[in-house]
Amino acid sequence: MSDYTSKPYKLKCADCGRRYEPDEVRYVCPDCSEKQESGRALRGVLEVDYDYKRLTESFNRDYLASCAQVGTRRYFPLLPLLDEKYLSPLLIGDTPLYGGNRLGAHLGMNSLFMKDESRNPAGSYKDRASVLVVAKAIEMGAETVCTASTGNAATALACVSASQGVDCAVIVPESAPPAKLAQMLIYGARVFPVRGNYDQAFDLSAVACERFGWYNRNTAFNPYTIDGKRLAAFEIWEQLGQKAPDSVWIATGDGVIIAGVAKGFRDLLGLGLIEKMPRMIAVQATGSAGIVNAFNAGAEEPEPVLGASSVADSIVVEAPKCGILALREIRESGGRALAVSDEEILSTMSMLGRLTGLFVEPSSAAAVAGLVKERRAGRVADDERAVLLLTGTGLKDIDSARKAVNMPESIDPDIQALEKALGGS
Amino acid sequence: MSDYTSKPYKLKCADCGRRYEPDEVRYVCPDCSEKQESGRALRGVLEVDYDYKRLTESFNRDYLASCAQVGTRRYFPLLPLLDEKYLSPLLIGDTPLYGGNRLGAHLGMNSLFMKDESRNPAGSYKDRASVLVVAKAIEMGAETVCTASTGNAATALACVSASQGVDCAVIVPESAPPAKLAQMLIYGARVFPVRGNYDQAFDLSAVACERFGWYNRNTAFNPYTIDGKRLAAFEIWEQLGQKAPDSVWIATGDGVIIAGVAKGFRDLLGLGLIEKMPRMIAVQATGSAGIVNAFNAGAEEPEPVLGASSVADSIVVEAPKCGILALREIRESGGRALAVSDEEILSTMSMLGRLTGLFVEPSSAAAVAGLVKERRAGRVADDERAVLLLTGTGLKDIDSARKAVNMPESIDPDIQALEKALGGS
Repeated sequence: MSDYTSKPYKLKCADCGRRYEPDEVRYVCPDCSEKQESGRALRGVLEVDYDYKRLTESFNRDYLASCAQVGTRRYFPLLPLLDEKYLSPLLIGDTPLYGGNRLGAHLGMNSLFMKDESRNPAGSYKDRASVLVVAKAIEMGAETVCTASTGNAATALACVSASQGVDCAVIVPESAPPAKLAQMLIYGARVFPVRGNYDQAFDLSAVACERFGWYNRNTAFNPYTIDGKRLAAFEIWEQLGQKAPDSVWIATGDGVIIAGVAKGFRDLLGLGLIEKMPRMIAVQATGSAGIVNAFNAGAEEPEPVLGASSVADSIVVEAPKCGILALREIRESGGRALAVSDEEILSTMSMLGRLTGLFVEPSSAAAVAGLVKERRAGRVADDERAVLLLTGTGLKDIDSARKAVNMPESIDPDIQALEKALGGS
Repeated sequence: MSDYTSKPYKLKCADCGRRYEPDEVRYVCPDCSEKQESGRALRGVLEVDYDYKRLTESFNRDYLASCAQVGTRRYFPLLPLLDEKYLSPLLIGDTPLYGGNRLGAHLGMNSLFMKDESRNPAGSYKDRASVLVVAKAIEMGAETVCTASTGNAATALACVSASQGVDCAVIVPESAPPAKLAQMLIYGARVFPVRGNYDQAFDLSAVACERFGWYNRNTAFNPYTIDGKRLAAFEIWEQLGQKAPDSVWIATGDGVIIAGVAKGFRDLLGLGLIEKMPRMIAVQATGSAGIVNAFNAGAEEPEPVLGASSVADSIVVEAPKCGILALREIRESGGRALAVSDEEILSTMSMLGRLTGLFVEPSSAAAVAGLVKERRAGRVADDERAVLLLTGTGLKDIDSARKAVNMPESIDPDIQALEKALGGS
């Protein structure tokens, strides 16, 4: 049996509050998941519940001052993992936080920051969840890991698995961007594109994991996805000089990233390292706005959006899996949820590129579009310490990028042709 | 006038050895470039020539031990730049060096390292040249920067320029991968795709810069491209515990990256920080192997390869611009040059992905394929401290990635269909 006495944590149901030993349950709360209805947000999502008093012994300002590690390993004392050796050799995290950028100047904001998560090895925030899940899989002796995904989670899982020689199976909508499909195949994953949407892929992967004994990385269903996604909060806090920002702006589909980042800041609060939670701001696409609708209606749980769609493929979901928890984090932090249109997303993508040299995928642009919209509506102060989480690289979705720009005509390779083209440029 | 007394350097012609003050010349050696023949390697390429004795006052082990900066700024004392404020706010460099990886184990090598340059902001090694060139452009008061490019140099220049609000014009073959074209447009560059190859784009951009007063970033033609490309050498040296590797394996087109990395190690040698140069190994595509041909023939200068072509688009060039200098660095370091086929490149791309979780573009895979080939031929020792420079992300060239994998058929989203597919997987 594993010895978790060195790791002071339990798994706690976000719905009923019941606490389990780490070895006692694998995914969701057995009690609450009995009430699960098909096609709705998950019931009984588990969070890792830390004993902060004991954790402060190993994780504190002295530890950080003397720690030379970067990325995931830096926060090993805050990971629900017995041994650092289970972590991928890839550098995951340690992504830059850019302040003083031209976007801030453009918006008249003097404390606007961008956390560039596209710099992760597989190019998205999902790497942060996958590194922890694969480490847990190895710790538990699982041979195969599996996930359903709109694309990024699958590339992340395939990437991390490859780096450690773990077998990986992924189930994705056949409509996933070609770049994401090619990427997961290059990593050697077994890829199963389905004639269906993400929600159907999610359901199928749950059945497959049960049937074949695979370890299920499905987002929110696997508690370590939320826990891995905490880590950007710790980095942001350090990069801001060990201070919390006022708000964090996050593109939201299932709601796991926002739940994870909020959990990270709650852990910092529990450890006495910050005094106040930042406001968590969820930005969704208008065509996939279950959490926004519930937020506006004062509901605890999002209603499914049948036929959800958007150019921001990685936040398209009918039933946000982590919707209940995400809504609670948004409300308890004094945050809000808002939606932006595909047009706003695409125009923001090119505006961000032009102003900052950051090329993000549509979902990341959605977070930026949300801030721009709120700022223009007078709901964001000049000096708000706002952090935009840029979750994925634009290189993964070139078709969308092409919609955001005008592709120029080819010219002959001579100066007359160039002068003519310049006249028209 | 600029005051370069604080910056102890001159520009030195790699052909005739004549030294110029930094303000005296802009691009190549005026004398030697008179002998320039069209369609051949550049004459009179200038290198930045440092006064090592003076440099050791500001750059030494004590400086590094107390320096908290990462990326380009960390090596500011070694940059030919008057003020750090000219550097892009983007984090360029600070890329991981992976040792102890599964590729090393696969090849039976215990000191194989991979430097993952795909983690740069625009996704390739070219960012390292562009950050310095744009900084110089701002220092000199140039309003527009311009480059010819197979794709990566243009995306790099567009990215860095956007981050600092500098106008950018790029001239690229219309055959450049769509991802690279979309990326440079997102950054707001003025993009001119030409019906011609890279060499024609190079010639046109030179004429255009002359005509319109643009600052020319063309690789090798602009001496700061080589100088910017030194910086990975400094990082590798630090990451290896302030030691030089035995060999560095570099995909080679124009020869500027290999010249730059070699120059970085020569600077470390001049500063007394290493005792011996690593062997510089150039790997080219068989369809674009001008430097390999010259190396094998004992020639000082590559003969143009008319109609050069390869799946590794970023190393396809008829006349390697920096061929003379690259050949000299390869020989003087005791290195060598070899070519690999497109088939070897594509199969190595997927092997690398499967073994390491690194998804690189074909040119980067060429460097790896070269090492694999030499190792299998018994020309690389078990304990050789070899560094593979992985110069660009695979996300920029999805069409090539798709050639390297088998795209699976879509299935219905049910367990029976999945079981059937698994039977065949």
